Amino acid sequence: MRKLGLIGGIGPESTIPYYHDILYGVQERVGRAYFPPMVIDSLSCFEVMPMASAGKREELAAYLLGSIRNVAAAGADFAAMACNTAHLVFDELERESPIPLVSIVDVTRDRAVAQGYRKVGLLGSIGTMTGGFFEKSFSKTGIAIVTPRAEEQSYIEHKLLSEVELGKILPATQEGFRKITERMAREDGIEAVILGCTEIPLIFAGMKSPVPVLDTMRIHIAALVDEIMK
Amino acid sequence: MRKLGLIGGIGPESTIPYYHDILYGVQERVGRAYFPPMVIDSLSCFEVMPMASAGKREELAAYLLGSIRNVAAAGADFAAMACNTAHLVFDELERESPIPLVSIVDVTRDRAVAQGYRKVGLLGSIGTMTGGFFEKSFSKTGIAIVTPRAEEQSYIEHKLLSEVELGKILPATQEGFRKITERMAREDGIEAVILGCTEIPLIFAGMKSPVPVLDTMRIHIAALVDEIMK
Repeated sequence: MRKLGLIGGIGPESTIPYYHDILYGVQERVGRAYFPPMVIDSLSCFEVMPMASAGKREELAAYLLGSIRNVAAAGADFAAMACNTAHLVFDELERESPIPLVSIVDVTRDRAVAQGYRKVGLLGSIGTMTGGFFEKSFSKTGIAIVTPRAEEQSYIEHKLLSEVELGKILPATQEGFRKITERMAREDGIEAVILGCTEIPLIFAGMKSPVPVLDTMRIHIAALVDEIMK
Repeated sequence: MRKLGLIGGIGPESTIPYYHDILYGVQERVGRAYFPPMVIDSLSCFEVMPMASAGKREELAAYLLGSIRNVAAAGADFAAMACNTAHLVFDELERESPIPLVSIVDVTRDRAVAQGYRKVGLLGSIGTMTGGFFEKSFSKTGIAIVTPRAEEQSYIEHKLLSEVELGKILPATQEGFRKITERMAREDGIEAVILGCTEIPLIFAGMKSPVPVLDTMRIHIAALVDEIMK
């Protein structure tokens, strides 16, 4: 059993299901009343998202690396960031990290490959949609990534920061996200959509998506349970 | 702003509201979109409760101290344990801890004093009800602690470990806890009841308590928000 160090708080609304579902996921695999050791260092999405949107890579990497060092100091054998946006600087972090990291982008790509997709949409923060790190990971396998239009990207980022990161899920916002996805399916021919922000599944939970979803948080959690069990 | 190190997982069902309500509690005090740094080291209630019930103080203190050292290494300025039972060895931990600890027992006692109670009931794990640490803290202020009968204590411990720690809240169990509290009010004259396990408020949430409650988790969370803001 390996100890996970989770970089959380980016935001807390997704850190909670990560924590809960990883513990109970391991318990189910172990088959008895048991919770694995785990450490969460909680940062703030209100630091990460603006840095990512502004492309402040060094500042962002330093902020996240501090947290990775914290969980390593607390005995974590490996680490993961409960946030897609933070993966903008994943390569830098992987070079400097004292412990191995499990990328939410790479495990989502592996799932997309397994499901045979060739062209998928990407919804996330501005940092995620413009950062190119999903494209870089996915292009290795020939899968094309389609991002929303600029004005749609602004709408998504605004809703994430002003509502979803604060735990608010509004029906009008759900309809807004559905329409963007539908347009991408119609105009761009996406076969599936990546919910590329760990808060976006909260929006999609209560609505019917026009195309199948790749829920990065669920895919990441399953991969982390596997890593803990190794 | 001071960084809290929370010793969690004992159990996760209470660690989650601790985490959520502390972050949003600080945000409310700060008055803007902000989350404070915080670290959670997650242990297992399935280790702590049997050690406490069996009175294995040294083993329990070593297990908890390891976690306190983990959060200190991860940059915590002070620590707290999200579990009453773990406070059985609070004095030992306070002597060895590299950082200050905020006791759930002492902050609950201060609240009981402020509310003018003279005799209060105590519901918790076997380790909490028989450990004498609530009595020790409360007796300094002249407040008497009444614990349930032996067979009631066994019932409570069993329900905590077999249902509540796993996230199950059953109506029959709520009625069982209500009856015990009612009997203590009638026979022992308790003026209030201490929900002396951070999972017990989950049981009391859906029912009418026969006497006012001292919700140790809520009182602890409020005290921790105060400490973070210092």
